[in-house]
Amino acid sequence: MATKPISSIETPCVLLDKSRLQDNIHRIQKIADAQHVNVRPHIKTHKCLEILQLQDEVGAVGITTSKTDEALTFINNGVQSVTVAYPLVVDSKLDRLIATSSSRQVDLRLTLDSPYGLEMITRVAKRHGKKINIFLKIDVGLHRCGVAEDDPLVLELVKAIQEESCLNFAGLLSHAGHAYGAAISDQVRQIAQDEHQILNRVREKLEKNQIEVKEISVGSTPTILASDNYDGITEIRPGNYVFMDRTPLRLGLIQPQQIALSVLATVVSINPEYFIIDAGSKVLSSDQGAHGIAGMEGYGLAYPVDRFDDLSHEMTVLKLSEEHGFVARRNFDLPIGSMIRINPNHSCAVANLADFYTIVNDDQMIDRWKIIARGKVH
Amino acid sequence: MATKPISSIETPCVLLDKSRLQDNIHRIQKIADAQHVNVRPHIKTHKCLEILQLQDEVGAVGITTSKTDEALTFINNGVQSVTVAYPLVVDSKLDRLIATSSSRQVDLRLTLDSPYGLEMITRVAKRHGKKINIFLKIDVGLHRCGVAEDDPLVLELVKAIQEESCLNFAGLLSHAGHAYGAAISDQVRQIAQDEHQILNRVREKLEKNQIEVKEISVGSTPTILASDNYDGITEIRPGNYVFMDRTPLRLGLIQPQQIALSVLATVVSINPEYFIIDAGSKVLSSDQGAHGIAGMEGYGLAYPVDRFDDLSHEMTVLKLSEEHGFVARRNFDLPIGSMIRINPNHSCAVANLADFYTIVNDDQMIDRWKIIARGKVH
Repeated sequence: MATKPISSIETPCVLLDKSRLQDNIHRIQKIADAQHVNVRPHIKTHKCLEILQLQDEVGAVGITTSKTDEALTFINNGVQSVTVAYPLVVDSKLDRLIATSSSRQVDLRLTLDSPYGLEMITRVAKRHGKKINIFLKIDVGLHRCGVAEDDPLVLELVKAIQEESCLNFAGLLSHAGHAYGAAISDQVRQIAQDEHQILNRVREKLEKNQIEVKEISVGSTPTILASDNYDGITEIRPGNYVFMDRTPLRLGLIQPQQIALSVLATVVSINPEYFIIDAGSKVLSSDQGAHGIAGMEGYGLAYPVDRFDDLSHEMTVLKLSEEHGFVARRNFDLPIGSMIRINPNHSCAVANLADFYTIVNDDQMIDRWKIIARGKVH
Repeated sequence: MATKPISSIETPCVLLDKSRLQDNIHRIQKIADAQHVNVRPHIKTHKCLEILQLQDEVGAVGITTSKTDEALTFINNGVQSVTVAYPLVVDSKLDRLIATSSSRQVDLRLTLDSPYGLEMITRVAKRHGKKINIFLKIDVGLHRCGVAEDDPLVLELVKAIQEESCLNFAGLLSHAGHAYGAAISDQVRQIAQDEHQILNRVREKLEKNQIEVKEISVGSTPTILASDNYDGITEIRPGNYVFMDRTPLRLGLIQPQQIALSVLATVVSINPEYFIIDAGSKVLSSDQGAHGIAGMEGYGLAYPVDRFDDLSHEMTVLKLSEEHGFVARRNFDLPIGSMIRINPNHSCAVANLADFYTIVNDDQMIDRWKIIARGKVH
């Protein structure tokens, strides 16, 4: 498509800086290559085929998803290896996922943390005659899903997986999402170390029981940016790293110039305290950080579009209505009609609200990419 | 479509109880009829043609929208009278809205609060030879958009509107959104009284200047539920009332059984503190109330599906990840695979994340309605 200047784009709009995006994708792949671990990106962040293509080009080994229909959207577009890092426990979801994976010879990798999940997956896999790789989810501190390392269920579930001819025990999987709530990068590094140690202890316990643990898969962008040691880990599943946002910035893990996703908005009204812009919670989301963790003031860092990333003109989006953002004014004026560009708190949530990305190169729009798995909540 | 039991629906899913929805629509229309004011519902809440049809059947006089493309979606489906209660200041948006309204003989009613907006609307209206009704937005305490009542701009803008042959001064418009932040219903009633008094004072000032104020339009579901006096008001523009949610419940303005929109989810994992469900911030939103106002703990009130609205089994959705909800456990157990039904904090935000409503009658799914203006952010 023909390029056009940012100033001619209708707002609100989700901008994606292509060179920053590519830099982010390269950076994590280089870390992974140096540490000899695979990258299996979580596509819940971007839900976009063009971005996966960039990840594939540098060496991604497949994708991670949360939702059945996210997985199916990508499988139907040619993806051959998928980990659903979510405990699927519903027959109809497993049924269509396993049926399609079977007919397309997809390497399907499922996750479980309960006898209920094991029984459900076994039943549906048998129905389709498909052999499925299974990861046991270990709770490493988020206290969401997963089995605690000292729970007898660890050994029971793995043995039960091994006993089923339609299942293959692939290894251990975790998500240290509590890292998003850390105050400083050293805390994130500690959380990553703890995660690796927990998983290695579980692996040793299983090996003592003559059970091979082929893979150990970890996730979370902050822990990957903060870690310098991946002993025993075989795979990382970061999602947010393609875009970044205020959370890794707050944690001191990135510079503002590494944030690839931003929101373009227009000043529609002005009062003594605020520039009122046309991006509200229906564009920026009400997230104050990943996992609902509030580590930041407001809902984004805003700049006049021609002073983007310039700290001397940085403002805070202090409040949100559904269709309005309240940008706290500083010592400069902007007329109604001016454009404002915002680094969001949580880019995954912003992407989830949009239909497409507006791809930019400096201040030129160069393309539009569809968010193809938008709305795939099942 | 054939009916089927709720238990067979895939989750997460936005349920809409049809009889509660109809009751809510009737209740507000009856209040309006008794007070001799028109109802012009704000469709940003539901974005759905079938719901507007129910509102039309009992007497709605047109629609209110925030976004250009919301308005166009409804105009292209036959709506003949639209108020855009938002200061549109962008040529391209006004251009396509006025062009379509002109060709379809739509009664288009725009809102402004600045000389910039006036100039922009005038320019585009002239281009299309279309006469447009204009409301002046008055700030009644939300301090978002609108002119303060004692600002000389009130008279200047109205006179300037009157001088343009392509514009017609229709009256005054306000939104007392700060009512969502009240602690009790008496505060909401006071905010509504203040709103009416401010608008009537502005009307008197204009009338002293021989300017007729044909309409005075107010909004917000809480203020309408709390008010018993509409002196001088000609129109109400509520949105949230079709669904309701935890905010009017918290304010003591409704009973739980009046909440028409709920979220159905499945327990996918269990830990000592929480039932983990498959509805996270991408379904429930991170809103803690309208306008980002946090008056409630957590992100929704949850019940086992067969104990919906039963206070003895009420739980709080205490935390959200993107795809997971953390439901705080109480003194009863639920196995993995159980369904949970949730009254959300802010139903407008939940509807905005969904593609369709699943229409239910008691515990039977009876239909699906498309959220036709979903994603219309421009």
